[in-house]
Amino acid sequence: MNALENLTQILSKLPGIGSKSASRLAFFLVKSPNGYNEILSETIRTIKEKVHPCSICGSYTENDPCPVCSDIKRDKTTLCVVESASDVITIQNAGVYNGLFHVLGGAINPLNGVGPENLRFKELIQRVNEGSFKEIIIATNPTEEGDTTALYIRHLLKGKEGLTLTRLASGLPIGGDIEYADKTTLSHSLRGRITF
Amino acid sequence: MNALENLTQILSKLPGIGSKSASRLAFFLVKSPNGYNEILSETIRTIKEKVHPCSICGSYTENDPCPVCSDIKRDKTTLCVVESASDVITIQNAGVYNGLFHVLGGAINPLNGVGPENLRFKELIQRVNEGSFKEIIIATNPTEEGDTTALYIRHLLKGKEGLTLTRLASGLPIGGDIEYADKTTLSHSLRGRITF
Repeated sequence: MNALENLTQILSKLPGIGSKSASRLAFFLVKSPNGYNEILSETIRTIKEKVHPCSICGSYTENDPCPVCSDIKRDKTTLCVVESASDVITIQNAGVYNGLFHVLGGAINPLNGVGPENLRFKELIQRVNEGSFKEIIIATNPTEEGDTTALYIRHLLKGKEGLTLTRLASGLPIGGDIEYADKTTLSHSLRGRITF
Repeated sequence: MNALENLTQILSKLPGIGSKSASRLAFFLVKSPNGYNEILSETIRTIKEKVHPCSICGSYTENDPCPVCSDIKRDKTTLCVVESASDVITIQNAGVYNGLFHVLGGAINPLNGVGPENLRFKELIQRVNEGSFKEIIIATNPTEEGDTTALYIRHLLKGKEGLTLTRLASGLPIGGDIEYADKTTLSHSLRGRITF
């Protein structure tokens, strides 16, 4: 195998990168702007040394606790439970949420060998018991695994005094077209209709 | 900017990688399998030292001339002219061509400042004059730029004694659906119809 094929094969192990994209990336890297490869290579080499899970919420951070957990201005009565650290970034970027986060590290998926014991539920219960939360927003994905995980969280936390459990609304994506909405999404958006 | 955002921004400069894909890749690299980042980083760092353009055909190679140009079993009477080095790999992988290649390094595109003087036409004429080619297959892309480049090659080489110029057939992609074919492709495939 030559150097280009080797690079292509290594790149094709990245998520969402098939063999064609990998080959395109490899050719780009052969004729990339001066200095780009060095910066990319160095950043990849050192990323794991720089970034660690936050000991409180579980999202990735350079300083522990992470900027969100250590921000005194954030609302300490609301906790948003997400599957992965990238969901924290997505919700942060939306700019409409000012509470805290809890990263589970995935969703319950017995077929893939992910049971409740592999996710950060113990830490969740501990935080809820020791914290001053009034609302837990369950922001797992609207998938079978995310639904199972949401039900499991309800099972864990239901009945705690003064604690409201909520879940993100499902429905038509903004900018979407009813014509192309699938049946399940449409039925969710009908059942969850709001007064206008 | 934190380390993850920095890595995301660097990754988003790769071709075909938008900010969402870049973020996904960055998160993957934080929790990638042991040793993967080191191998990827080292391969990216050294790729330009290892790979160079072949002095004959212009495709990327570790040894000069490249394996295709130095392969005595290949048909030295047929030359396939392509826009980029990645096209050589694509055609090689199809496994149906046994002649030589010539990489132009792009297509004529005046709007992007790419004129004939920026492409490897001089080298092409020299190879044709000094070589023993009987057929030149023009394998530029079926785009406006590729068409312009093909016409330019015809203008350069037309009238050479004993030399046939051909161009790759355009038409319906195999596995495609006539219903979804665009007008131009369909008209090409009608005009280029073959006896069956």
